[in-house]
Amino acid sequence: MFRIIKKDTKTRARAGEIKTPHGIVKTPCFMPVATLGTVKTLSAEDLDEIGVEMLIANAYHLYLKPGVEIVEKAGSLHRFMNWNKPIVTDSGGFQIFSLEDVKVEEEGVHFRSKIDGSSHFITPEGSMEMQKAIGADIIMAFDYCPRDWANYDEVKLSTEMTVRWAERCLSPFYGGKQQLFGILQGGIYKDLRRLCIDKMGTMDFPGFGFGGLSIGEPFEEAAETVDFIINNIPEEKVRYFMGLGMPLQILDMVEVGVDLFDCGMPTHIARTGSTLTSWGKINIKAGRYKEDFSPLDTECDCFVCRNYTRAYIRHLLNANEILGLRLNSYHNLYFMLRFMENIRVAIDMGSFKEFRKDFEMKYNIGEKRR
Amino acid sequence: MFRIIKKDTKTRARAGEIKTPHGIVKTPCFMPVATLGTVKTLSAEDLDEIGVEMLIANAYHLYLKPGVEIVEKAGSLHRFMNWNKPIVTDSGGFQIFSLEDVKVEEEGVHFRSKIDGSSHFITPEGSMEMQKAIGADIIMAFDYCPRDWANYDEVKLSTEMTVRWAERCLSPFYGGKQQLFGILQGGIYKDLRRLCIDKMGTMDFPGFGFGGLSIGEPFEEAAETVDFIINNIPEEKVRYFMGLGMPLQILDMVEVGVDLFDCGMPTHIARTGSTLTSWGKINIKAGRYKEDFSPLDTECDCFVCRNYTRAYIRHLLNANEILGLRLNSYHNLYFMLRFMENIRVAIDMGSFKEFRKDFEMKYNIGEKRR
Repeated sequence: MFRIIKKDTKTRARAGEIKTPHGIVKTPCFMPVATLGTVKTLSAEDLDEIGVEMLIANAYHLYLKPGVEIVEKAGSLHRFMNWNKPIVTDSGGFQIFSLEDVKVEEEGVHFRSKIDGSSHFITPEGSMEMQKAIGADIIMAFDYCPRDWANYDEVKLSTEMTVRWAERCLSPFYGGKQQLFGILQGGIYKDLRRLCIDKMGTMDFPGFGFGGLSIGEPFEEAAETVDFIINNIPEEKVRYFMGLGMPLQILDMVEVGVDLFDCGMPTHIARTGSTLTSWGKINIKAGRYKEDFSPLDTECDCFVCRNYTRAYIRHLLNANEILGLRLNSYHNLYFMLRFMENIRVAIDMGSFKEFRKDFEMKYNIGEKRR
Repeated sequence: MFRIIKKDTKTRARAGEIKTPHGIVKTPCFMPVATLGTVKTLSAEDLDEIGVEMLIANAYHLYLKPGVEIVEKAGSLHRFMNWNKPIVTDSGGFQIFSLEDVKVEEEGVHFRSKIDGSSHFITPEGSMEMQKAIGADIIMAFDYCPRDWANYDEVKLSTEMTVRWAERCLSPFYGGKQQLFGILQGGIYKDLRRLCIDKMGTMDFPGFGFGGLSIGEPFEEAAETVDFIINNIPEEKVRYFMGLGMPLQILDMVEVGVDLFDCGMPTHIARTGSTLTSWGKINIKAGRYKEDFSPLDTECDCFVCRNYTRAYIRHLLNANEILGLRLNSYHNLYFMLRFMENIRVAIDMGSFKEFRKDFEMKYNIGEKRR
């Protein structure tokens, strides 16, 4: 299902391909977040035009709204949202364990819906059934995310339960067309990461999500943990850093060999007025852009940059006009997708390190200028 | 600038063409509302695809945000918003007189900005300068809208002042490429309407907006007033019912010879979950559509109806997803534009009365079924 096409000689970066029922995905890959079956403000046609290769939705969120049975009756999430390329669903463990009213037991997790206060109980098997019904190409194991990452005992408990739950996720998973990725836990504790990898590394997962990272800890600690994970799981497994990233973080992680990323940040910051450009991130709502009739990024050839100006998009955002959110989201995603494409080309040409240096220099100069 | 191409023989409906620097607009025409230089949720490319012929923006709103000088520096509102077809600007008299803190005098009107509380003074001449700078194809005279329509004395004062202001609007208007339309006031009082028409009907306006109508009074009263206006202004003037309408109202008004309409309603109701269909207006957020995988309107061939289902759009709207607002807005506008096109074809074929009967029957049957 996954093959490595090219390994960089100067770094541990690698380029590969994930085969799915909805087509091949080239890695390193950045997945926009479509939690509820939509990348906020954008249509499936926009995403296709932007060159998105794979999306990630959230099974837990879709379970609450509109309900798994509706997505299933539509034929699949692909049909429901009119997106014919690959989709990943996250199980939503992370989101469930972030709720206030959660009770976990060996069998599964009890929680209350934030929407209507109703009680729910989700088991690893239930999550698998749910994700089967939703029909994504790649689905994620149901993991237990500790609530207090600084509490070693809780992280230990969560890691051990995540391992047992991983086994249970595999067992009702009859190896249909969907691929099931495991999620590795263990926080920043090497012994717990080791424990998790020792047990799960041998299970039949074609890829692993790195869970419990980039949740507030210093990035260096996360990077160290990623390094440890990568050194200890089989090379042929897809390496997926969940919830990351922004451009500079992605460069860091591609360099050590991460294949897959997802992050709501590029679209989230678009809606609050931040625009990604070759010269760093800018706050497009700032007064300095009010008479700036150049495109968001002079080096970008996206639909937005070809047709609209900074001054207009600034005006829209300052007037709370939805089109502003949409145009800025479109551009930021396009920026991310071109960025990933450039990374893949650089790996292919053996020039990733140079690409990284050039990109960072320019990006940082822009940031410092402001 | 305006020519009547076809007059219906069974009704007073008429089809015509308005020539503008940005192309010819066929009438009867419905203009989507782009108050701040954007039709809410939609891009200029969407509007073009939908077949929008002419938009209406609001000079007063653009004056406050982003400021007329920015639109002017962009080249024109067309350039600013990337829309190369005709644009009308309303002067914004109606909006200014709806504010709480307004003081009117012969020279102009004092008001406070709702945005920052700053004081402003706009004169008829100032409004003309403003609208020239914005660069719309058709601009509207600056009128005085009474605040209490039931108060004869105030309506009389407003009507008389609107007439004097109309003269002042014409005088600094040097007959450039822009067309200036007058706005007729007089409320529902025949003598005041007569007074207004007698004075303004002979002024050099190629068209007239019907002001102070459809603002809460029974539709029959507005219709009677429109009838009176139309019977008393020269046939070759464009007749523009400001702020109307929804499909059935438009049919009523086209039948008596109105040429031009604008209304924020089709896009406004789209954002609150109402969808226009051949079988009447439906509330797409309702539970009955949760597993309805048919298009919004089975008889519609728009981009949304070709690609998305009621169930999906219902889900998006119920989850407060912006894409839901956008897809529903797109469809509703497409519905309005096809509707206007059908009206024009029917007038051209001499079958407007039959078209109206068929449309209404179907539209009403649908409404009653629910």
